[in-house]
Amino acid sequence: MAHKIGKQTIRLDGEICICSSAGIAGHKESEGPLGQYFDEVYADDLLEETTWEKAESRLQSNVARIAAEKAGLHYEDIDVVLAGDLLNQCISSTFGLRSIGVPFLGQYGACSTMAQTMLLSSLLTDSGAVHRAMAVTSSHFCSAERQFRLPIEYGGQRPLTAQWTVTGAGAVIIEQGISDCMIKDVTLGKINDLKIKDANNMGAAMAPAAADTIITYLNDTHTKPEDYDLILTGDLGYIGSELLIRLLQMEDIDISKQHNDCGKLIFDREVQDVHAGGSGCGCCASVFCSYIMQQIKSRKLKNILFAATGALMSPTSSQQGESIPGISHLVHICSNTQQ
Amino acid sequence: MAHKIGKQTIRLDGEICICSSAGIAGHKESEGPLGQYFDEVYADDLLEETTWEKAESRLQSNVARIAAEKAGLHYEDIDVVLAGDLLNQCISSTFGLRSIGVPFLGQYGACSTMAQTMLLSSLLTDSGAVHRAMAVTSSHFCSAERQFRLPIEYGGQRPLTAQWTVTGAGAVIIEQGISDCMIKDVTLGKINDLKIKDANNMGAAMAPAAADTIITYLNDTHTKPEDYDLILTGDLGYIGSELLIRLLQMEDIDISKQHNDCGKLIFDREVQDVHAGGSGCGCCASVFCSYIMQQIKSRKLKNILFAATGALMSPTSSQQGESIPGISHLVHICSNTQQ
Repeated sequence: MAHKIGKQTIRLDGEICICSSAGIAGHKESEGPLGQYFDEVYADDLLEETTWEKAESRLQSNVARIAAEKAGLHYEDIDVVLAGDLLNQCISSTFGLRSIGVPFLGQYGACSTMAQTMLLSSLLTDSGAVHRAMAVTSSHFCSAERQFRLPIEYGGQRPLTAQWTVTGAGAVIIEQGISDCMIKDVTLGKINDLKIKDANNMGAAMAPAAADTIITYLNDTHTKPEDYDLILTGDLGYIGSELLIRLLQMEDIDISKQHNDCGKLIFDREVQDVHAGGSGCGCCASVFCSYIMQQIKSRKLKNILFAATGALMSPTSSQQGESIPGISHLVHICSNTQQ
Repeated sequence: MAHKIGKQTIRLDGEICICSSAGIAGHKESEGPLGQYFDEVYADDLLEETTWEKAESRLQSNVARIAAEKAGLHYEDIDVVLAGDLLNQCISSTFGLRSIGVPFLGQYGACSTMAQTMLLSSLLTDSGAVHRAMAVTSSHFCSAERQFRLPIEYGGQRPLTAQWTVTGAGAVIIEQGISDCMIKDVTLGKINDLKIKDANNMGAAMAPAAADTIITYLNDTHTKPEDYDLILTGDLGYIGSELLIRLLQMEDIDISKQHNDCGKLIFDREVQDVHAGGSGCGCCASVFCSYIMQQIKSRKLKNILFAATGALMSPTSSQQGESIPGISHLVHICSNTQQ
C-alpha cells in the first residue's frame, strides 16, 4: 500500500509505470525547438472544427486515441480517465472524451492539471482500485485568449510579462507493471497566495507554489536537487522560473543547474515572439508527454521531478479585485534501470 | 486493497468511514422542509461579502470549518481536501479553501461533485495514501444564475422545467476507522449524452447518466433495489426523477419505492415556487451532509446508494449548439450495525 512520507508526499509501493504517452501540438508549437518530438502537429489550429472550443476538444480526443494506439490498447482496457482543462466547466475534456466510454473523473488544477491527473492516476493504480488509468489535458491559444483576456481579433498588445498559451495536449496511460518509465512518489500541493494580482504575469503568481512543493518534496524525501537529472516545472516561463530559483535560494536550495521549464522549452524566445514563454495546461502536457518521455525512454534522463503549476483564478475573480492563488503538484519519475 | 468488482464498481476493503459532516444553506433553503437539519443557515445570502462569488467562497470556508470542528479536528489533521463547484475555474473552492493550508485537489463533476469528491476521498483513504480526506462542494443561486443564465436583476421568466440552484454547501471528512456511517463501495460514472440541448431542463439531461450508473452498480454487485432503504439521486428534480424511474423500468428495474432526489427534498414545491425542484452542487451536498447523514446516524436509514448527477455543459457549449452530456458517480453507504 502507498504510504505518506513526511508532510505531503506519498510513496507508491507497487510497481507503477507509464505504459504509453502522446503529445500533440498546433502550428506555432510545431515550428518551435520541440516540433520534431510531437506525435501529431496541426497546420490548421481549428482542426477542421468550426470553433476554437471544439478544436480544443478535438485535441483531447486525438491525444487520447494516439496514447491508446501507441500502447496497443482499446478504450475498454482503460478503467478510468482523469482529465481537465482551462475552459469554463472544463468543456474541452468533457466534450473531447464524452464518446470514449471510459469512466470519467473531471479535474481542475489549472495548468497543474497534467501533474494532478498523473498523481491521482498513479495513486488509484497503486491502490488496486483500477488496473489502468489515463491522464489527459489540453489548452488552445485562441480559446484561452477569448475566455481569459480578449478575442484574438481585437489585436490587443501583450505586455512583456505575458505568456503564450500553448495549443496542445498530452496524455499518459498509467498501469501496474514495469516499463522504461516508472513513477515513484507524488507530492500533493497546497494553495499558495502571495497576493499577486497581475493576470498578465502568471509566472510570478505560480512561482511561490512551485517553490513550496519542491521544498516540501526535498524535505519529505531527504533528498537534494543534485539527486535529480532534471527538476521540470510546468509553465512558469522566463520570469516565473527566475523567481522560483530566487525563492529557493532564499531557503538555501540551489536548483539552477537542474531546473528547466516547459514554458521555456517549447518556443524559441528570439524567433517566436512569445514574450515570457509558453503557458496553459497543454504546455507541460505536450512537452512532458512527447519530448521528456522520449528522453526518459532513451535514458538521457533517469531521475526527474515534474512539478506542474496552476494559477487558480478566473476573469471574474480578477475583476473583483482578488489575487491569484497558485498550486503545484509534483510527480517523481525514474527510467527503469532494471530493464 | 480496494478491488474492482464488475465493470465500474470498486469495493473498499478497509474500514472507511465518514467521521464528520456538515451541511449549510441560504435563506430560501432554511424555509424549506429540511431547514431544521442544516448546521448553519444564513438570513443574508451575501454572507456579509460584497459579491455573490465571494459569498459562495464563504460557504465553502464555513462548511469546511464546521465539519472539522464537529470532529474535533484541526486542519493539520486532514491530509487532503477534494473540492469543486460550478463557477468558472472553480473559484468558490480555490478562494474558499485557499487559506486552510491543506493539500488541495480541485475536482469538476458539475452537480455530481459531492459524490465524486466522496468517491475519491474514500479510495485515497482506503489505499493508505492518506489517513483523512475532506470532500467539499457548494453552489449559490445568484452566482449560478448570473453565470449560466441571466443576472437576477433582469427578472427573466423561468420555464416550468427549470430548477432552482440551491444556495448551500456540504462537507464530509472521510478516514480509516469506524463510525456510525461506513462507505462500502463506489461506482465511477461514464459520460452519457442522449443529445438533449435544453439548458432549462437539466433533469432530463442528467437522468440517463443516473440510470446508467445505477444499472451498472446493481449489475456489478448482483443486488436489487429492494436491498437498499434509499436510492438517492443528486438533483434530478421532479422531471428528471420521473424520467429516471421510466428509464429504469424499460430495463425491468423498479426503484420507485426506494428512490428519492435531493432536488425534491430540499424545497416545498407547492409553497416555494421552484418549478422542477432544486439543483446545483450545493443541493445534494447540503441535503446529504445534514439531513441524510442524521438519518443514517440515527439508523432510520441503514443502507443507501447516493448517486449525484452532473450536467457537463457550459454557456459557451450551449451557444455553440452542443448537447448536454451528463455524468453520475455513486457511493454506497451503510450505518454501522456492529456498533
